[in-house]
Amino acid sequence: MRTMKLSKVFTLLEPGPVVLVTTHDGKRSNVMTISWTMVVDFTPRFAITTGEWNHSYRALKKTRECVIAIPTVDMLDTVVGIGTCSGADTDKFAKFGLTPLPGKVVRAPLIKECLANIECRVVEFIRRYDIVVLDAVAVHEATSPKERRTLHAVGDGTFVVDGRRLDRRRQMAGKIPAGI
Amino acid sequence: MRTMKLSKVFTLLEPGPVVLVTTHDGKRSNVMTISWTMVVDFTPRFAITTGEWNHSYRALKKTRECVIAIPTVDMLDTVVGIGTCSGADTDKFAKFGLTPLPGKVVRAPLIKECLANIECRVVEFIRRYDIVVLDAVAVHEATSPKERRTLHAVGDGTFVVDGRRLDRRRQMAGKIPAGI
Repeated sequence: MRTMKLSKVFTLLEPGPVVLVTTHDGKRSNVMTISWTMVVDFTPRFAITTGEWNHSYRALKKTRECVIAIPTVDMLDTVVGIGTCSGADTDKFAKFGLTPLPGKVVRAPLIKECLANIECRVVEFIRRYDIVVLDAVAVHEATSPKERRTLHAVGDGTFVVDGRRLDRRRQMAGKIPAGI
Repeated sequence: MRTMKLSKVFTLLEPGPVVLVTTHDGKRSNVMTISWTMVVDFTPRFAITTGEWNHSYRALKKTRECVIAIPTVDMLDTVVGIGTCSGADTDKFAKFGLTPLPGKVVRAPLIKECLANIECRVVEFIRRYDIVVLDAVAVHEATSPKERRTLHAVGDGTFVVDGRRLDRRRQMAGKIPAGI
């Protein structure tokens, strides 16, 4: 994986892919599937929705760190598998054959098999809505991925795969941050 | 358009489509393009990110109401056009040939041309992050749309179109809310 410019990171989450979020509680790594995410600033700052119902939440609360990893379509059954078992009784990295890699800033692991990994620090837990505001502090992208298509969870057990890409850069020139 | 069950509304936003958000300030209707949205609860409750930089924000703040409309791929140039001009000097409904329809609960208009329209009330403005928490109060879906594919803004001026849909309902049975 190679470093990606922080200014471009919002383009990983803005399209709304389902993501994997890793944590490390000081003893063990864990990973959860999340589809409730939102860009909130180009800084880059994100929000995710998670709470006590996720085993990972405890580690997130304690360490105030996580990694948001972007899986591709070939990882669908891993994404679903991770989302339907618990780190309370399962070593998910082992169970799903994921390769943890050390991050540059946070202790939560990167996932080698993913398209990109965003190291994040918690800015604030907005408890009344279970919203967690995160700042990206480092980003890594796969050097030469064979698969780039991501997945969008519908929420009913189906997933939409990225289709073709349409270009409106010229029309949007005035609205795109410099260098993107 | 026909009424959609409120319990299913989160499935419209969970995949992360770019959306149109309409408002009505008491005199005029307006509409903006937003891609920073997130489901925060099945109730259904959503968050969007918007602030003073959007002309619509004034009406949203004043009325605490809006409609989130879901455009389809054939509306790409409307989505881009709406996102690159301002309601301060443009009647966007007229300019882009959108048909406003009355909602059931809020005064902000539905957009006839869209796949679905979610009438929303503001729960809270979380000003320090420009996050607005919304509750859906009524939902309408197109009766027999010819086009169902939505758009995902990447943020760099390109848009990803929905591709094929993969079914993992069986594997996720325990995680899907009843009746979805």
